[in-house]
Amino acid sequence: MIGLIITGGTLDKDYDAVSGELVFPGTCVPDMLQQGRVSHPVQLQVILQKDSLELTDMDRQRIADACAKHPARQLVITHGTDTMVETARVLAQDVRLHDKTLVLTGAMRPFRLGKSDALFNLGAALMAVQLATPGVWISMQGELFPWHGVRKDRTAGRFVAAS
Amino acid sequence: MIGLIITGGTLDKDYDAVSGELVFPGTCVPDMLQQGRVSHPVQLQVILQKDSLELTDMDRQRIADACAKHPARQLVITHGTDTMVETARVLAQDVRLHDKTLVLTGAMRPFRLGKSDALFNLGAALMAVQLATPGVWISMQGELFPWHGVRKDRTAGRFVAAS
Amino acid sequence: MIGLIITGGTLDKDYDAVSGELVFPGTCVPDMLQQGRVSHPVQLQVILQKDSLELTDMDRQRIADACAKHPARQLVITHGTDTMVETARVLAQDVRLHDKTLVLTGAMRPFRLGKSDALFNLGAALMAVQLATPGVWISMQGELFPWHGVRKDRTAGRFVAAS
Amino acid sequence: MIGLIITGGTLDKDYDAVSGELVFPGTCVPDMLQQGRVSHPVQLQVILQKDSLELTDMDRQRIADACAKHPARQLVITHGTDTMVETARVLAQDVRLHDKTLVLTGAMRPFRLGKSDALFNLGAALMAVQLATPGVWISMQGELFPWHGVRKDRTAGRFVAAS
Repeated sequence: MIGLIITGGTLDKDYDAVSGELVFPGTCVPDMLQQGRVSHPVQLQVILQKDSLELTDMDRQRIADACAKHPARQLVITHGTDTMVETARVLAQDVRLHDKTLVLTGAMRPFRLGKSDALFNLGAALMAVQLATPGVWISMQGELFPWHGVRKDRTAGRFVAAS
Repeated sequence: MIGLIITGGTLDKDYDAVSGELVFPGTCVPDMLQQGRVSHPVQLQVILQKDSLELTDMDRQRIADACAKHPARQLVITHGTDTMVETARVLAQDVRLHDKTLVLTGAMRPFRLGKSDALFNLGAALMAVQLATPGVWISMQGELFPWHGVRKDRTAGRFVAAS
Repeated sequence: MIGLIITGGTLDKDYDAVSGELVFPGTCVPDMLQQGRVSHPVQLQVILQKDSLELTDMDRQRIADACAKHPARQLVITHGTDTMVETARVLAQDVRLHDKTLVLTGAMRPFRLGKSDALFNLGAALMAVQLATPGVWISMQGELFPWHGVRKDRTAGRFVAAS
Repeated sequence: MIGLIITGGTLDKDYDAVSGELVFPGTCVPDMLQQGRVSHPVQLQVILQKDSLELTDMDRQRIADACAKHPARQLVITHGTDTMVETARVLAQDVRLHDKTLVLTGAMRPFRLGKSDALFNLGAALMAVQLATPGVWISMQGELFPWHGVRKDRTAGRFVAAS
């Protein structure tokens, strides 16, 4: 069984026709699993629906607690890209999680807006969490980065290996 | 570097408005790599554009030859789902490929028709080919099956473990 | 109030992932009205779900009867494009319909496959039925043709004025 | 020949993956005409790419001038919904336009984000401009409103008849 911890981020946003702004109308991950025709048993938990720039220390603690309490040892965490590495650091430092495989992923374009990378990233992350060794990983753009070896290049809009 | 061998299958089909039929208008995999924001160096080769029910022994030999000659040791092969296991068998029996990791994937719904599993499957396959040990694998619906332990259940429209 | 008579055609088709064929899974016109944010009172009636090449004389009689019995005097009829003109002729010859405005429309690509002309055509037809004089019209590709002055050019995949 | 005057508005926006904001990457109306399989000769002119809340008096004058100089007597103007009625008033008061049919339209959700009303509205507007009498009209949600008899209800996100 694979665990899915949902925290929000761009992946879960949608355009609101009345306000003209991007909002969180509820997670789209169940729809994504259905579109991917996922047959695995997956246990999904929605922890937050937030832009990752607005995550607090307490939010990160909630994510870590959810990972620790989750019965699965393989966990995919959907997360905004801007502070994905910061959350990864908190998870990596939590001794309760040292025997789990944690893969953070997200999207640069919301799933609901079409032409999104979200489904590609979710497929890659679900595969990575089954094959990678325990630890904290970031899966984006088809690559699996160890959490301490990656940063987001906000100008280019992509993750790059960090020294 | 990862190699991508394109053979067609449902993934690459589109609806033709004039004939009202499904056709192969050219592979959509480059568009999928762009949508997935793939940063890896990927070397793509289009071998065939065929429904996998129409693949001949000679077609399978061409796929095996392309895999053998390809400089990459990690190869994703897009393929129709109906005879994916048959092609996997041919590849597994080819001694030239024994040190390569070969991952076959495809889609149950064409990428260009929307709501497709193609992008999810491509993300999963690209991740699998980087993490799995050498051998021939089938990556569908978020699972990685050894080629000799899977069959397509055509009634249910999914891959299931085979004894 | 505007009446909507649904008969099927390409507009209502979808790709079936298990059979790999195009099927009629139930009309998509209510979803289209919602996407178009239609505020008018519309009364929708599903008569048939058929490819228009398979319509019989009896089917065309059912369509005419539904138009005659419908309380609205403005009726949009969704229909396959291949025999749209034949059905229009039957409707034009029915004396019960001489004070009604009947607009036939359809699509060259199914709505559910994305990149479809269906929504454009429905918007145009709903506007045409409110503004055109009584009679039988065909609304496709942004044009309103009198039924007796149009034919489908099957090679080009479009409607053209007929002498 | 029908003229198309493009001024921007929600219809033309897209999500920018790097900034995470909605931007104007160039008009999508030519793509929409192609998707709608429009066969009419249409002469398109891009005047502005602006949110309609940011239109100045000078911008409205430019729109009126473009309409006056355009060789077509039937003109569709794509425009943001928030101040569509204000621009309609300027056009209605311009004596140079009194023998032209002007139809303003737009969208509540950008075309490029999928599930948009843009294509429906463009189909309706192109039909309306061919059938309506000279004057200034607003075509939204399948209805044709005279410019002086409509307002946008921003809470409901729709146009309603105004006394």
